[in-house]
Amino acid sequence: MLDLIAFDADDTLWHNETLYSVTQEKFKRLLAPFQDAATIDRRLYATEIRNLQLFGYGIKGFTLSMIETAIEVTDGRIGAREIQEIIAFAKDMVRAPVELLDGVRETIAALAGSHPLMIITKGDLFDQESKIARSGIAEYFQYVEIVTDKTVETYTALLNRYAVEPHRFLMIGNSLRSDVLPVVAAGGRAVYVPYHLTWEHEAVPVGDQPPASYVQLQHINEVPGYVAGLANRVGIACD
Amino acid sequence: MLDLIAFDADDTLWHNETLYSVTQEKFKRLLAPFQDAATIDRRLYATEIRNLQLFGYGIKGFTLSMIETAIEVTDGRIGAREIQEIIAFAKDMVRAPVELLDGVRETIAALAGSHPLMIITKGDLFDQESKIARSGIAEYFQYVEIVTDKTVETYTALLNRYAVEPHRFLMIGNSLRSDVLPVVAAGGRAVYVPYHLTWEHEAVPVGDQPPASYVQLQHINEVPGYVAGLANRVGIACD
Repeated sequence: MLDLIAFDADDTLWHNETLYSVTQEKFKRLLAPFQDAATIDRRLYATEIRNLQLFGYGIKGFTLSMIETAIEVTDGRIGAREIQEIIAFAKDMVRAPVELLDGVRETIAALAGSHPLMIITKGDLFDQESKIARSGIAEYFQYVEIVTDKTVETYTALLNRYAVEPHRFLMIGNSLRSDVLPVVAAGGRAVYVPYHLTWEHEAVPVGDQPPASYVQLQHINEVPGYVAGLANRVGIACD
Repeated sequence: MLDLIAFDADDTLWHNETLYSVTQEKFKRLLAPFQDAATIDRRLYATEIRNLQLFGYGIKGFTLSMIETAIEVTDGRIGAREIQEIIAFAKDMVRAPVELLDGVRETIAALAGSHPLMIITKGDLFDQESKIARSGIAEYFQYVEIVTDKTVETYTALLNRYAVEPHRFLMIGNSLRSDVLPVVAAGGRAVYVPYHLTWEHEAVPVGDQPPASYVQLQHINEVPGYVAGLANRVGIACD
């Protein structure tokens, strides 16, 4: 039924948004003498979005955006020592241990026995390779693709490159915008497993969501059951 | 004779080190009131090397290293406005036009008619994809591989993945350390085309160079002739 099963990585296989969220809290504490927390959040998000086309996703771009925001919201009154602190935040993020989500190891090990598995992750090549290497589950993945963005075109090009027919491809991830909707639009199957935090930029307004053409599961450990169910429906039109 | 011809990108296809070099000059002018140029060069290089394992190669890591160095060499006396300037340097670098080296377009167009071409480049995924897209020669390359480092293992894994026998692979690049020596060690062929600037980290001490097992050409436009020469030698043991 499926020739390839792919997983998003950040917040699907391991915790990531928590790391950004914890860092942003430290950033707000650092700037508390200068500016209120809500303003800092708002200005940082605006800077991140503005810089996305210049710096892309990842810790280094986030850090440059924090530094820029710190200078702006303090009208240049921020000191060099505080900026040094922000760089130290970045180093802490890079060095942070990779914490798998509950059930990931078992799920991945189970699926790897029956299907070729791939990681398709967006972001900084260096950060992502380092996390995959430290995850302890790299051996289960036959393929790793690190991309700068996840659009319909990204998935279509990948499926072509691996000679996989879209309807025999399944993607699992926590972002409707990046892991689910473009896969469905490319003719593939997608399972949406929400994470408890979503970066504002990845959120999809409720009105923009298409009628359910994907499956939502509460936990990654339900994926093997879903895959087994698909196999059972061979011969029946599925969509 | 050859199943795949691969090119390094930065300082092989287009100018790159000049951009870093020009930025480093601006950085030294910015810090001139605090510290002499030689000290700044030395301290920046030390910071870059120290941060390489945390941030990898690329503009964003270089920028974070400049900011860190600026704070250190001024004993924290650098102001927020100067740091804002450094971030502006980064944005200028990202936006800088991609300038092909002389003869690149003609050489690549000629080779693309007879061989599948690949780009193998090290560094920041986002920076590199953006440069390839803006280079105007992307269409000639059938494959693009952006990697975090170029070691014997990197090349061996790539050749396995593309099912290319090492002796039927040719790599062309400006770095002995990254483009030439590991390729030769992996059993492939390599052409070294020096660029007039080499980042200290990429330089190979003369004593560490193996006996010539690669070819050095002065200009990229000599590559098609070299490739034609190889084809002429079919049937003769080449190495």
